[in-house]
Amino acid sequence: MTNKKTSGLTLGIVGVGLIGASLGLAHKKANTFDRVIGTGRSQANLDEAVAVGAIDEVVSLEVCAKTADVIVVCVPVSHTFSVLHAIEPHLKPNALITDAGSTKSDVIMAAKTALGDKVAQFIPAHPIAGGAQHGASAAKVDLFKDKQVILCPLQENLPSAVDAINDFWAATGAHTHRMSALQHDAVFASISHLPHILSFALMLQVANSEDASVKLGHAGAGFKDFTRIAASSPEMWRDICLANKTALLKEMDNYLHLTKMLRDMIAKEDGEALLKAFTRASIERQKWEGRS
Amino acid sequence: MTNKKTSGLTLGIVGVGLIGASLGLAHKKANTFDRVIGTGRSQANLDEAVAVGAIDEVVSLEVCAKTADVIVVCVPVSHTFSVLHAIEPHLKPNALITDAGSTKSDVIMAAKTALGDKVAQFIPAHPIAGGAQHGASAAKVDLFKDKQVILCPLQENLPSAVDAINDFWAATGAHTHRMSALQHDAVFASISHLPHILSFALMLQVANSEDASVKLGHAGAGFKDFTRIAASSPEMWRDICLANKTALLKEMDNYLHLTKMLRDMIAKEDGEALLKAFTRASIERQKWEGRS
Repeated sequence: MTNKKTSGLTLGIVGVGLIGASLGLAHKKANTFDRVIGTGRSQANLDEAVAVGAIDEVVSLEVCAKTADVIVVCVPVSHTFSVLHAIEPHLKPNALITDAGSTKSDVIMAAKTALGDKVAQFIPAHPIAGGAQHGASAAKVDLFKDKQVILCPLQENLPSAVDAINDFWAATGAHTHRMSALQHDAVFASISHLPHILSFALMLQVANSEDASVKLGHAGAGFKDFTRIAASSPEMWRDICLANKTALLKEMDNYLHLTKMLRDMIAKEDGEALLKAFTRASIERQKWEGRS
Repeated sequence: MTNKKTSGLTLGIVGVGLIGASLGLAHKKANTFDRVIGTGRSQANLDEAVAVGAIDEVVSLEVCAKTADVIVVCVPVSHTFSVLHAIEPHLKPNALITDAGSTKSDVIMAAKTALGDKVAQFIPAHPIAGGAQHGASAAKVDLFKDKQVILCPLQENLPSAVDAINDFWAATGAHTHRMSALQHDAVFASISHLPHILSFALMLQVANSEDASVKLGHAGAGFKDFTRIAASSPEMWRDICLANKTALLKEMDNYLHLTKMLRDMIAKEDGEALLKAFTRASIERQKWEGRS
């Protein structure tokens, strides 16, 4: 005999890809909701989400908005406005909304326009989790376990609403942190968005070279690690580049400048300067590995 | 009762770091030599090489040259000249020499100057193997198993000498390939040297930023993969940059140009061009992963 407690609450997941479907699995395991409903664009993927047990039922976006007590938007950031715009008229007054977008300033801009006063119900979030696979079939119940989730609360949010969404993410096993959207976007431009562009660029350069097959035939472990993220979703990364343009351009300009400096050290055969630069990088990387 | 056959041959290892000591272990296991002797700069590391069973005996560079039938030079590429210069007067007439340097044009230039006519005895090689750890204590008997070794034979080499050095590397479990030194250096500038510089540069940029600790506190799996090679030996990479300057500068200039193009696509919000570039990179990376 199980002692199943009843929350009386319904979770609505908009977009049941890897992130959305994994959230469904995690919350069904945590038993935080009585019911998990899902909506999305691909019927095949929605069916798959039901089949893997990530959601109980497939509903329309309108029914999702009318029914759910917590709505989590797991769609490409460029679709955030249209989703929020569509659900806004139907939201329950006490419903809370969160999202899983990789950028936050643009999502907040979209949310304020789409939701108006109801933006108080929206607590932006970014789970630092993912994987090479896509879709509900790749969902994992422990995708968020011991991962970080960044919350970027708005001035409009009630503290109780922020706490509730904090608990929502913590229930998946994630560790939550709070920062401003501006800081979030600067931080992730630096440690995530920039390396993705750089990895795409190296893969392009090698693949487009005349002796690509010889090069790729001899590429080893370093190349493999460096270019792993170049296999990421092109659509998602185009969206992120456009959504976080300002912070990303700043990081790219810094990087181009720094790499040009290293190039000039090599051209001038300034071994001392190269050694100094590489030594600092190597020590910092080892320190980071030690504490991460 | 074991059936130990006797080759009557002695292997001399100059430099018993990770590569040199692992070679010793692999050849002792393969039983290709009767005796393995080693020489180097650090007495502590030489003692360690004896302790882990990579070499039977520590000798001077001169004794190594006088005694060994095969000599493998496993020192930083910038030291190749001084090692070959020192052993040249003492070499046995039938002795063969190979090396493990990451660059080849500069090594060959050094070898021709140091060895004169005896350069016919030198068959340059580059094993594509390594690890984050250094020194004899990190040696592994299977470091070269199923790894690639590139041989860059010289016009001066006799075919029988090239075959013998081919067998020397194959005995460690490695797969051997042959190409010219020029092609070797161009290929590795592209798939190995360039990504190392780029990884060092990203690590430097993040570590040198004002909010480095916040950034490093939130860096995830992508950053970890991308910067893994930034923990590499600064001395070794300074040497490689200087040794392979011409090919590396060409690759760096191409990369700076390509990355600037991507930067401008983002600045112009040209989503279509970004998608095209990222899609090609992503598809090529997935194809490579599939066959590698």
